[in-house]
Amino acid sequence: AAFDSINETNAGLDTFFLLFAASFVFFMQTGFAMLCAGSVRQKNVKNIMLKNILDACGGALGFWSVGYAFAYGGADSSKKGFIGNTGFFLTGFTTGGELIGWFFQFAFAATAATIVAGTVAERCKFEAYLAYSLMLTGFVYPVIVYSIWSSSGFLSAFNGEPFLGCGMHDFAGSGVVHMTGGVTALIAAKVLGPRIGRFYDADGNPLPEPVSFGPHSVSLQVLGTFVLWVGWYGFNPGSTLLISNSTAAAVSALAAVTTTIAAAAGSVSALFMDMFLSRMKTGHCEYDITMCMNGALGGLVAITAGCSVMAPWAAFVTGIIAGWVYIFFSSLLVKLRIDDAVDAIPVHFGNGMWGCLAVGLFAEPSRVANAYSDHGNYGLFYGTGGNLLGAQVVGVLWIIGWVTVIMTPYFLILNCLGLFRVDAIEEEVGLDISHHKGAAYDISGPSEEVPQKFEI
Amino acid sequence: AAFDSINETNAGLDTFFLLFAASFVFFMQTGFAMLCAGSVRQKNVKNIMLKNILDACGGALGFWSVGYAFAYGGADSSKKGFIGNTGFFLTGFTTGGELIGWFFQFAFAATAATIVAGTVAERCKFEAYLAYSLMLTGFVYPVIVYSIWSSSGFLSAFNGEPFLGCGMHDFAGSGVVHMTGGVTALIAAKVLGPRIGRFYDADGNPLPEPVSFGPHSVSLQVLGTFVLWVGWYGFNPGSTLLISNSTAAAVSALAAVTTTIAAAAGSVSALFMDMFLSRMKTGHCEYDITMCMNGALGGLVAITAGCSVMAPWAAFVTGIIAGWVYIFFSSLLVKLRIDDAVDAIPVHFGNGMWGCLAVGLFAEPSRVANAYSDHGNYGLFYGTGGNLLGAQVVGVLWIIGWVTVIMTPYFLILNCLGLFRVDAIEEEVGLDISHHKGAAYDISGPSEEVPQKFEI
Amino acid sequence: AAFDSINETNAGLDTFFLLFAASFVFFMQTGFAMLCAGSVRQKNVKNIMLKNILDACGGALGFWSVGYAFAYGGADSSKKGFIGNTGFFLTGFTTGGELIGWFFQFAFAATAATIVAGTVAERCKFEAYLAYSLMLTGFVYPVIVYSIWSSSGFLSAFNGEPFLGCGMHDFAGSGVVHMTGGVTALIAAKVLGPRIGRFYDADGNPLPEPVSFGPHSVSLQVLGTFVLWVGWYGFNPGSTLLISNSTAAAVSALAAVTTTIAAAAGSVSALFMDMFLSRMKTGHCEYDITMCMNGALGGLVAITAGCSVMAPWAAFVTGIIAGWVYIFFSSLLVKLRIDDAVDAIPVHFGNGMWGCLAVGLFAEPSRVANAYSDHGNYGLFYGTGGNLLGAQVVGVLWIIGWVTVIMTPYFLILNCLGLFRVDAIEEEVGLDISHHKGAAYDISGPSEEVPQKFEI
Repeated sequence: AAFDSINETNAGLDTFFLLFAASFVFFMQTGFAMLCAGSVRQKNVKNIMLKNILDACGGALGFWSVGYAFAYGGADSSKKGFIGNTGFFLTGFTTGGELIGWFFQFAFAATAATIVAGTVAERCKFEAYLAYSLMLTGFVYPVIVYSIWSSSGFLSAFNGEPFLGCGMHDFAGSGVVHMTGGVTALIAAKVLGPRIGRFYDADGNPLPEPVSFGPHSVSLQVLGTFVLWVGWYGFNPGSTLLISNSTAAAVSALAAVTTTIAAAAGSVSALFMDMFLSRMKTGHCEYDITMCMNGALGGLVAITAGCSVMAPWAAFVTGIIAGWVYIFFSSLLVKLRIDDAVDAIPVHFGNGMWGCLAVGLFAEPSRVANAYSDHGNYGLFYGTGGNLLGAQVVGVLWIIGWVTVIMTPYFLILNCLGLFRVDAIEEEVGLDISHHKGAAYDISGPSEEVPQKFEI
Repeated sequence: AAFDSINETNAGLDTFFLLFAASFVFFMQTGFAMLCAGSVRQKNVKNIMLKNILDACGGALGFWSVGYAFAYGGADSSKKGFIGNTGFFLTGFTTGGELIGWFFQFAFAATAATIVAGTVAERCKFEAYLAYSLMLTGFVYPVIVYSIWSSSGFLSAFNGEPFLGCGMHDFAGSGVVHMTGGVTALIAAKVLGPRIGRFYDADGNPLPEPVSFGPHSVSLQVLGTFVLWVGWYGFNPGSTLLISNSTAAAVSALAAVTTTIAAAAGSVSALFMDMFLSRMKTGHCEYDITMCMNGALGGLVAITAGCSVMAPWAAFVTGIIAGWVYIFFSSLLVKLRIDDAVDAIPVHFGNGMWGCLAVGLFAEPSRVANAYSDHGNYGLFYGTGGNLLGAQVVGVLWIIGWVTVIMTPYFLILNCLGLFRVDAIEEEVGLDISHHKGAAYDISGPSEEVPQKFEI
Repeated sequence: AAFDSINETNAGLDTFFLLFAASFVFFMQTGFAMLCAGSVRQKNVKNIMLKNILDACGGALGFWSVGYAFAYGGADSSKKGFIGNTGFFLTGFTTGGELIGWFFQFAFAATAATIVAGTVAERCKFEAYLAYSLMLTGFVYPVIVYSIWSSSGFLSAFNGEPFLGCGMHDFAGSGVVHMTGGVTALIAAKVLGPRIGRFYDADGNPLPEPVSFGPHSVSLQVLGTFVLWVGWYGFNPGSTLLISNSTAAAVSALAAVTTTIAAAAGSVSALFMDMFLSRMKTGHCEYDITMCMNGALGGLVAITAGCSVMAPWAAFVTGIIAGWVYIFFSSLLVKLRIDDAVDAIPVHFGNGMWGCLAVGLFAEPSRVANAYSDHGNYGLFYGTGGNLLGAQVVGVLWIIGWVTVIMTPYFLILNCLGLFRVDAIEEEVGLDISHHKGAAYDISGPSEEVPQKFEI
């Protein structure tokens, strides 16, 4: 009877743990909305926020109806497969664990979807965005989840016979979530083309220098960044999926620590590297808050795969490099004249990739044994061979490949049909006025005469 | 000894659970403040936020001193009563369960109070608002709580002899919290009258078309909406009040799932219905972010009563209809020339009512047994008769009746005494300048000459 | 075996509890950033937010490398010492309890650091701020933590032979965290001098009346205040450090209740006291939202020391007085011509001090026994002598003394070397343009002609 009671208590504790973690992950939607809103020009604020709300809603409906079934339905560690096929519309879900598991996974799916919103901001049609986001949460993302996180996945660490003896180790989704969103964003940005006036003049000739379109509100960007960071404490520590024993507790706690250190390191690293690079060019010493924010986010994305298997010092190294990775990919995009309105590609694709690879370098034996199992394959620096790194590389290529194969034709077709990009005149006017009944702000006070009347 | 230990652990777990949930519910105050602030004109921002802070504070002091005692004091399932009478000022509260129970219930009371702030914004006197909000949290709301949630309540599902064999099922308060706030808002708006220039010209003649006063910041509105949504994961899943066994865990997890689906459905439903209706009128296809936000909130309010007893599909249906209910009541108010500055009445009154009724339609037998007891009365669609629906209807009428009987004379008296509404000139100037020492924003940069000096 | 299982469950539960609490405390960084950003003028918004992000990052790196080792390393209740010396870089941290303990303590350290940012806003050099904030989280703050919270501390309540038989009782850090930040802010403000034009004219003569520099966005201030309040539910209830038994649960729950009541009382008290004082001067009855916000924060700071040992009524009294303490210190600073851009000194230093002393007055025997041990020394009002009050007074003096001795020469040297304050012209232009590549906002819409084109 005492054992029964403990099981009852543990059922409650673990359900509560995922309720907490999922609520924090869902809170990241607020962060993305504020970060995106702050980053765009004043004339497109309502449009981007509407997309942010709707991909949360679309994610919920898509993941309820088919997404979760595709991602996990009928998974079985004794075999491998491509896609799940049970549990559509949550049919048969009755226990706390099943139900809260859906809620937690939905929050991740919505995160993957919303990453793209920022990149294509200020020029993407609203309907195209909706169609894409249902496609992503309903099909593209679930297939990746199935392959890496479900026990039937061909790259899953939880399969009975994992790839290369270990499978891919992507604890909370540097690859599964962030690269999926990031690769999609990259393809979309390439197909959609840059915003008018960013890289080309009115005749289509490249400008000598790209024009940067400043954020309309840095306050909203900072708010969004902090909220995302906070939400990450659900994302990473929550990915143990349970907390009712001391091993899970140690793994979850480690994730909180490494997440913190990597974010801090990424922020500092990007800020100072950018400052040094600018000073070499201009001689001035200026600190750019954008670097600080995106560096932190880059560090967070990068540690997401390895948060549970790395020592704190390795999290520090991962974060420092994440700052550089961010700067490198950000400059590369500008060189390639690919226009990312919020720099989501360097943050989520660049650092998602780096995070997956970092696991292959830094995964520490005892921590791998805690978070996964004692399979004997660890980070390259621990001298046990390159199987884990190999699995990580294959995982990265698989994600890039799958997303590219599905989304490239999808976006190209949308584009050919004229359904992807708004008209040039609408873009110039701004989407808020042209599509959403007016501007996002009206900060005019009462007319001049009124206060005068009042004074008298 | 092992049993003792388990009881100790469970005491800690359940206290922690309510600490988490109540903190999330309290976070909704932030959401209401941002939503209200964003919705009003720039000249009244400080005023509305001051009211939002103060009803949280007033709610705490009112609910500490008398409110909680009236709501739950001395409740006993073997008898029925009208109002509680023990535990004033938390006297005798020593256990974790008692203390955290107060904290959780306070957060709900503060929610009921703050709903009204938005409706009466831009014209209600500050002192009248304070007086009303103490009245609501200290007396009106506690009586409703006693009747429906305490074990002595005449409509309570937890009484030994519940009304119609089941009592009213209002799990987290579509009726108790949202209708109470919403009915009060409706009465207040009717007595107070519309803002100057909204429905009538300077001579008091109806305008051919109502003038809508746009929000001053849609960014703040979106922030508020997301924060409310996040907070709802404390509001609904927390209303199990405990989590230390697998049944409670299943109920709480179900609440998280249904809450998510109903919010998403409400948002999508309101957005597209509004778009179709507008297109029929104007021929243009425009997406209104206000619909998206208030639809989500409407869905959240509507699922609040039934979150623990409905299947996910029923939550979806409830949410879809909630979007329509919102639009219907919003249009109706405009037709009736009742001015609601933030559309709180359609969201909280309209959908609070719909949510209570939806339980009478969709409550599923096995889920009712988990969340309440196996009393044999379920939703109409499950073919067990109309007792539950009957109890829900009576509950709705009781809430409307009680609030109306108390608040109508209260507001009428305030109004007759000239204590309810600010002077017309103060309203035109805006309350921030006339009552709160100046405008909420000063976004002017340094004067033109200064940066020029700097460049040289 | 059942006992083992309970220990496993408890390990998970307590780790989860601190993960929750620390995440909420970390969320307070968002609150500080928004409050500070809202409080400064538009021209310095990016600068202050950059500092807010960086002290979180610096706090993480400083507390990981040396801070935590200094604060707790090798503490032992059988002896006393000055500073810890094991656990640098988290070496040897493997259990959930150890790791999550660091995360929780880091969040507190970052809070202490960020308090100063607001006070010195709009004129402090970025590099000086960074250097100071590493110094604080890496050394000054850890020494105070060691002395009061580690079991080896000379003032610690957890030492085997505590000072005056009880040691200092500073449950969540009115003294350790808030006074440390507040005293530093006071010294920094004094050394740094007021902002140009605040108290003196261009020739250095005192102005007849101080000029107040209004906040640029009250909405951001309110957002920050509410987020801080929410975060405090991690700060205070989380400071039990565990929740796996009914005593800890009761202590934690009490902290949630007293925190709520003190915040509400502080807010109301400051608002109305200020209104009465202004009315006596000007005859007008105006409600100042700044008072309402800072009063709430003052109440929160003041209850932080005693949240676990005071009855709800004592929390109410503490909060009411906190509102007055805030107003008193705020006026005093203006009289002394010390310029605090966000009034952090009255809130954190003034009320931190009041909170420590209030414990010596109101600590209730049975609650002290729950939260600490039954050592027989309680608040003065309970008639058991003045030992506890004595320990509190010594604690207050120790914090003031230690911070003053270290930070005064530190800031004076920075100042002499010209590293502390920006040039006058940079200050006039604003730090965003002079140091951070431009203004924080660009709220201009599309140019006039564009929408006209669109209409045609």
